[in-house]
Amino acid sequence: MSEPIRVGLVGLGQIARVQHLPALAGSPDFRLVAVCDPAPSAVPDGVTPHRSLAAMIAAGGIDAVAFCTPPQVRYRLARTALAAGLHVLLEKPPAQTVAEIDDLAALARGAGLSLFAAWHSMFAGAVAPARRLLAARGAGAMRIVWREDVHKFHPGVDWFWQPGGMGVFDPGVNALSIAVACLPEPLFVRGARFRIRPGEHTPVAAMLDLATPTRETGFTADFDWDHRGEETWSIDWTLDDGGALSLSRGGAALRLDGATLVEEADAEYPRLYAHFASLIRAARSDAETRPLRLAADAFSLARRVA
Amino acid sequence: MSEPIRVGLVGLGQIARVQHLPALAGSPDFRLVAVCDPAPSAVPDGVTPHRSLAAMIAAGGIDAVAFCTPPQVRYRLARTALAAGLHVLLEKPPAQTVAEIDDLAALARGAGLSLFAAWHSMFAGAVAPARRLLAARGAGAMRIVWREDVHKFHPGVDWFWQPGGMGVFDPGVNALSIAVACLPEPLFVRGARFRIRPGEHTPVAAMLDLATPTRETGFTADFDWDHRGEETWSIDWTLDDGGALSLSRGGAALRLDGATLVEEADAEYPRLYAHFASLIRAARSDAETRPLRLAADAFSLARRVA
Repeated sequence: MSEPIRVGLVGLGQIARVQHLPALAGSPDFRLVAVCDPAPSAVPDGVTPHRSLAAMIAAGGIDAVAFCTPPQVRYRLARTALAAGLHVLLEKPPAQTVAEIDDLAALARGAGLSLFAAWHSMFAGAVAPARRLLAARGAGAMRIVWREDVHKFHPGVDWFWQPGGMGVFDPGVNALSIAVACLPEPLFVRGARFRIRPGEHTPVAAMLDLATPTRETGFTADFDWDHRGEETWSIDWTLDDGGALSLSRGGAALRLDGATLVEEADAEYPRLYAHFASLIRAARSDAETRPLRLAADAFSLARRVA
Repeated sequence: MSEPIRVGLVGLGQIARVQHLPALAGSPDFRLVAVCDPAPSAVPDGVTPHRSLAAMIAAGGIDAVAFCTPPQVRYRLARTALAAGLHVLLEKPPAQTVAEIDDLAALARGAGLSLFAAWHSMFAGAVAPARRLLAARGAGAMRIVWREDVHKFHPGVDWFWQPGGMGVFDPGVNALSIAVACLPEPLFVRGARFRIRPGEHTPVAAMLDLATPTRETGFTADFDWDHRGEETWSIDWTLDDGGALSLSRGGAALRLDGATLVEEADAEYPRLYAHFASLIRAARSDAETRPLRLAADAFSLARRVA
């Protein structure tokens, strides 16, 4: 076993507290040594708090940084970290635009560092078995349904509706990340209908017509962030032989023709950090851009509906 | 000198008649042997007309195909041509989405064929000297102004305002293609303001805030397709040493501190076909996606203004 990788966590908001701190506490690969936040709170014992990334870098003693800041500032901060010789993990979405991710990936490659665009839903338990089944039996159709109540999961947050806030694509990119991870073929956006509320700049609901190189119809996504009642995070595939493959609970469950293949508690972040460790030890990057690219494609092809 | 490459032209609309047919007639590298259009007219002597790509392929005797169809159908047609073993040139924009271009590039690579995403403005006379100057002296600021009257250049055309029609980004991507070809650093979209007229889905005017890895401000684009009077297709750079580099006439003219460096008649398409020939002979592709990616990024970050 190698020495643990010394990691600093930048941005101590909800996702850091709920997912990153527990995953790091349980990780055999990493040791959390520092955190950084303009107003650090809930700092674990034995971890050094900093007010800025510059201060954290100046203090030294870290090998890698995980960014849980709002996406607007990730690109600049990640550049600073890479320039300081640190491996970088970026929460999703990894940046505001695909061009930024590609630039960070080139920078990491040139410096021999690992960049990890951490699309957490790709590490849900259903993803690997779904990918194997779809590779073997083909995807004839796909229906994504991703519906939840934004007020339940993000009370009081309103930057989603500003330009760059992505609206319903903030959760929707999770579905798209699972879809691209599972499908044996590339996925394209063919058209989109956006529901944008008056005075807002991003959609609260979106319907996407999708396609693959060999399937022009039968691939759809239905995103709704104004949904009341029980949330739905499901992807249903019709296999080429007629079988029915159904992913639900955001990827924590998978059924084939009604029979349960996967049913687990959420374990995305422990797997995600294990992958980050494997990237660092193999001197590789994983700078996945497809989910964000599909979202941008949908914006560029969108029809606004009432 | 090798044998001329036998080429078929698909889509005999305005751009084919005004640019592709004359460029091919003057090319030492290509021989136009077939055209294809649902209603072929103005077919040059000695060239075989076909009603469909399938018929053109079935007739045989061609090595390459140039697509001048509307962008919505280019991806499917290009796949068909690559599957038939033909080299492919795509007018700009090469497809509806970046994901489609990447898929075609992978297909071409696997088949040992050349794919050329032909962003014609990249072949304007000012581009190569501007690139050399900017590489040597740095770009401290950039101001793109691309203003023209859509009714003057495209009378009666209204698909621009439908989803996927791109609106003012149809000419605007020409400016973006020049910018990415000239700048020594990557270019990012930081924000955008779109003017979309009632009942339309794409912007008639757009203002972009752009950035590079080392410059967060001073890079802008001003696109207006509702402009009256003389058109403007210019890019002004402030060099790091204070020099003023000015590209105008869409890239046909270039001045440095007021002194003319380039002043030529439009010669984009002859250069473009010479590049296509060099790609085919070197068994390479040029599947440039950055202009379309920047446009999609602008849509995804846009603020709608009145």
